[in-house]
Amino acid sequence: MSDPYAKIVELGYKLPSVVPPVAAYVPAIRSGNHVYVSGQLPMVEGALAETGKVGSDVSPERAKELAAICALNALAAVDSVINLNEVVRIVKVGGFVASAEGFTGQPAVINGASELFGAVFGEAGRHARAAVGVAELPLGAPVEVDVIVEVR
Amino acid sequence: MSDPYAKIVELGYKLPSVVPPVAAYVPAIRSGNHVYVSGQLPMVEGALAETGKVGSDVSPERAKELAAICALNALAAVDSVINLNEVVRIVKVGGFVASAEGFTGQPAVINGASELFGAVFGEAGRHARAAVGVAELPLGAPVEVDVIVEVR
Amino acid sequence: MSDPYAKIVELGYKLPSVVPPVAAYVPAIRSGNHVYVSGQLPMVEGALAETGKVGSDVSPERAKELAAICALNALAAVDSVINLNEVVRIVKVGGFVASAEGFTGQPAVINGASELFGAVFGEAGRHARAAVGVAELPLGAPVEVDVIVEVR
Repeated sequence: MSDPYAKIVELGYKLPSVVPPVAAYVPAIRSGNHVYVSGQLPMVEGALAETGKVGSDVSPERAKELAAICALNALAAVDSVINLNEVVRIVKVGGFVASAEGFTGQPAVINGASELFGAVFGEAGRHARAAVGVAELPLGAPVEVDVIVEVR
Repeated sequence: MSDPYAKIVELGYKLPSVVPPVAAYVPAIRSGNHVYVSGQLPMVEGALAETGKVGSDVSPERAKELAAICALNALAAVDSVINLNEVVRIVKVGGFVASAEGFTGQPAVINGASELFGAVFGEAGRHARAAVGVAELPLGAPVEVDVIVEVR
Repeated sequence: MSDPYAKIVELGYKLPSVVPPVAAYVPAIRSGNHVYVSGQLPMVEGALAETGKVGSDVSPERAKELAAICALNALAAVDSVINLNEVVRIVKVGGFVASAEGFTGQPAVINGASELFGAVFGEAGRHARAAVGVAELPLGAPVEVDVIVEVR
């Protein structure tokens, strides 16, 4: 596995500052050989990049970009508890898409996160996943992503 | 624990082929002594057995059958990474039911999955579970089930 | 960490009896050094303390109290498999809020659970979390909470 920090830059991204939780919890916590990352919203410099429902207010293509932002924020959260070079693999991704009535393209949206993990970690970025369409998300976010990561 | 493969046949089921992910992830992944199974839809030979919301388009009874199909697909996913005889226990089931307004019978629906795991694994099939009613599911599926399995 | 049982009483709460599952699963199960707790509803002595959607039928303030009841029921479920003094840390909280159209205050609602864990376990109560707004919950519950706990 190549250095994930270098890979993030190579992909044209910048590892953001860890997003402070919007409530009484922590961004990520280590338990044994796993890091559990809290549900990440598509925050950019302290504000949601977009609000609204996917399939009406927000296009699926834009929502996919937002899912990549959630994934970057998840990596920032992991980095707040352990060096990303200690990541053994991304284990499980949970993808929640605030969905307009009749929008059923959640998998393509959450691919924004899955593909980022694949690009950053290669084979170690291949993960199990569940993607669902929910009624509402915190602060009106269109997408939320949580992650379980295996670490050394 | 009797042989789960024999038990599946005895129950009148057939272990399906593993359902290819509808996006950039894998059906199941092993991390330490656990296998994390991706959210499984009620796919039968490559197509959804049913689409629509439970409580309007799809009856709760039919949705329970669909949850059993999800569970079978989950076992196929586990089987793609480890022999089912290596299963120590089913640990956690997540059940997502695409719910019509006012439909609150999610537990009985997800019992379709829980009872299948109980029938196949006996005592080792008893698990923790969360069942919720979501707005929309991928491809219009009425039910989605993900699973965490402890393995030898 | 002070004795969690004493702390619960000191906070003015009473550890409830474990809530029997509403379907074919168990309240909590141990797997390795973790206890997985099933999705807990705000049941009080066998009945839901409240039903309806948060943001219309149920106020966010009341929903926060209901989330604390879910958290207490989760501790009762943990206690059914292991002494609470064996808890190393609360690892992950999943919060599901049955949300009226346009209600986006899920984090403040689920704080009811997060703050209770913090009050009972102190530093060991700090956890990762995902909070989402769902369409419907079992039996019409306004809130559901599941938990992963690390144990000795």
